[in-house]
Amino acid sequence: MGMKAEIITIGDELLIGQVVDTNSAWMAQRLNEYGIVLHQITSVHDDRQHILTAIDEAFGHADIVLTTGGLGPTKDDITKQVLCEYFNTSLVEDIRVREHIYSWYKERPDVLNRLTATQWLVPKSATILPNRVGSAPIMVFEKEVIGIGKKLLVAMPGVPHEMQIAMTEQVIPYIRLEAGGIIHKTMLLSGIPESTLAIRIEDWENALPSYMHLAYLPKDGMIRLRLSSYGEATEEEMNQQIELLQPLISEYLLASEDLSLETILGNLLKQHGQTISTAESCTGGRLAAALNAQSGSSAYYMGSVVAYDNSIKEQVLGVEHTILEEYGAVSEQTVRQMAEGVRVLMQTDYAIATSGIAGPTGGTKDKPVGTVWIAWATPKGTHAKCFRLGTLREQITQRAVTTAMIHLIRIMRD
Amino acid sequence: MGMKAEIITIGDELLIGQVVDTNSAWMAQRLNEYGIVLHQITSVHDDRQHILTAIDEAFGHADIVLTTGGLGPTKDDITKQVLCEYFNTSLVEDIRVREHIYSWYKERPDVLNRLTATQWLVPKSATILPNRVGSAPIMVFEKEVIGIGKKLLVAMPGVPHEMQIAMTEQVIPYIRLEAGGIIHKTMLLSGIPESTLAIRIEDWENALPSYMHLAYLPKDGMIRLRLSSYGEATEEEMNQQIELLQPLISEYLLASEDLSLETILGNLLKQHGQTISTAESCTGGRLAAALNAQSGSSAYYMGSVVAYDNSIKEQVLGVEHTILEEYGAVSEQTVRQMAEGVRVLMQTDYAIATSGIAGPTGGTKDKPVGTVWIAWATPKGTHAKCFRLGTLREQITQRAVTTAMIHLIRIMRD
Repeated sequence: MGMKAEIITIGDELLIGQVVDTNSAWMAQRLNEYGIVLHQITSVHDDRQHILTAIDEAFGHADIVLTTGGLGPTKDDITKQVLCEYFNTSLVEDIRVREHIYSWYKERPDVLNRLTATQWLVPKSATILPNRVGSAPIMVFEKEVIGIGKKLLVAMPGVPHEMQIAMTEQVIPYIRLEAGGIIHKTMLLSGIPESTLAIRIEDWENALPSYMHLAYLPKDGMIRLRLSSYGEATEEEMNQQIELLQPLISEYLLASEDLSLETILGNLLKQHGQTISTAESCTGGRLAAALNAQSGSSAYYMGSVVAYDNSIKEQVLGVEHTILEEYGAVSEQTVRQMAEGVRVLMQTDYAIATSGIAGPTGGTKDKPVGTVWIAWATPKGTHAKCFRLGTLREQITQRAVTTAMIHLIRIMRD
Repeated sequence: MGMKAEIITIGDELLIGQVVDTNSAWMAQRLNEYGIVLHQITSVHDDRQHILTAIDEAFGHADIVLTTGGLGPTKDDITKQVLCEYFNTSLVEDIRVREHIYSWYKERPDVLNRLTATQWLVPKSATILPNRVGSAPIMVFEKEVIGIGKKLLVAMPGVPHEMQIAMTEQVIPYIRLEAGGIIHKTMLLSGIPESTLAIRIEDWENALPSYMHLAYLPKDGMIRLRLSSYGEATEEEMNQQIELLQPLISEYLLASEDLSLETILGNLLKQHGQTISTAESCTGGRLAAALNAQSGSSAYYMGSVVAYDNSIKEQVLGVEHTILEEYGAVSEQTVRQMAEGVRVLMQTDYAIATSGIAGPTGGTKDKPVGTVWIAWATPKGTHAKCFRLGTLREQITQRAVTTAMIHLIRIMRD
């Protein structure tokens, strides 16, 4: 096993649920890419004793401790003071940090006050890494552990983009040392239940060497199947196992890498020089947002109409009034006309339309909450299908987005 | 202080960053609502020793330990076995769970196999709560601690909607005991930097009783200011402090509750019986998605045009070709015509338009990445403003969404 890390996220807001901790997953991905095993993530209060205990426990397991949060200029942020206490050092003025803060607030002199001024006080024994996109400095502390050697603690701001830039530009280069090679091979599957898949590949799984670990990661109607090795298998050995697996799962395979659906679909569209648009009712713009989330999506994504109200379906997309009256907005006839309407309006090769009952109200016996019709208009004609996508509003709309993309990937590959 | 809880989320996927832990924040909110203090959140691997250690440490701090994850039918899920070991019990067949699983898989008999069949084996000493929306049972274990009394561990599935329904319908009613009353008062502010605000309200903050705690929670250009008491202050005492605070912050106050921007805006539109539409370039459907995220939004949200390509801006929204040629897509002239165009197209009272450079490419010296023009078309005329919203694609689009909503709230209140 190579180097081990732990993450401590600091802030009362995490523990009352006001903020979702997205930082940890982002840092975990980066650590893994560089072969560093993340042992644990711990979220603690802005509380002196709690932070001290968490650091001590983390150093018990890990070579590198990464903390985020608690570095702001206000009273509730105490991480810097607590780190001084833990590492038995004191705050001193740092000239370079002061200059950075002066230039940082140059265009907003009103913000340079006695609270922000405390930001150029840094722990004497820490190495200070520059924060290009914020005022809180990034601090690296060293801890000598007898018989083991040097361990590190890196304290970063909790603001996601400040942490991300700090990790990418400063912290990873700093800690990118002699860690052993972690290898993950991830395959993305759809159209098969987890347990059916497990039985289908059971003989292969049982024959895996003990130092390879298989995980099933279900998400939004797909399964990510991940084979991992922590420093013991070679790339070639891993690839050999994947080759044995492929024929067992080929009919369900969406991608042989851990790509997002929007990347798989975007790559397909770019390869063929084709374009796409969407007409959305229940997904309300979320399918559009998925399709343009990536940089470079303007090469294939043209635009969308969110036709929430029926009048928009008629007047902008050209759905016939009699169709809406006879079959309703959530019907095969309506989504077909929506998809074909937006395909003509935006002159694209493909178009996806969605219409469903996201709830919690609006369900009927024939069309309960969770009923979603999706249509795909293509150069070769229009497909449409009805789905039941759960019971909760957010879940239904999110599943409609992924279902719409999965099926278009299948249609484009056929 | 009342009852304390800890959360342990179990799964390798959390520690390699393949999944963002949204469960913890959701559970934290529920616990807080019911007056239970969440002490710590810990994410651990699907590893026997690691899970055992985490449970033991959590019981050291908390009266209630909530775990999620590791309850699936496949080999990598080991939580149930590890809990048997920790609580010194063994798996037995549970007839009610077996019946539930039979009926659960009735419509998908192919999925009822020897792996899913292990789901009706449950720890003998656990109380089993029904899982209405999944196959993994919810398990409650009791632990007698000498001199302290009964502590609880509740194991739930990691699938968000299964956990949410389990918490709401089963777990919270089960553990809703004698916990003391936590009170949070949250105010949402915009238009003032955190440190300027801190200085402005410093005298008030310093005069707070020691058992009231103030936190500054910046997010997306807003600040949530939260005053908390953990069982010591009365509702009336808290309200008195808030009354003293109000005049100091009134000009920056968006809401006196912790509401989302879409809720504040939706409530304003509903109160006035008015409607809204959007025309989006750089926000790509995200503003639409925010406006229709809430149930009941069809009362005021009509629809949107995502005009990613310039041809859509012209042909669907009616932006003049000469305007696009002379001023470019990211300009005051263009967003004004987009907003006015969609307002007429969708016949709404208000319309918001966005056009900006989300990057990472496309920036120029005059219009660097992060430049976003936003226009608000209203019954009294059209406003437009230019913003610089950062450097990262996701950050820029997300800030454009919140900025667009904040300013419309201000316009509607004026």
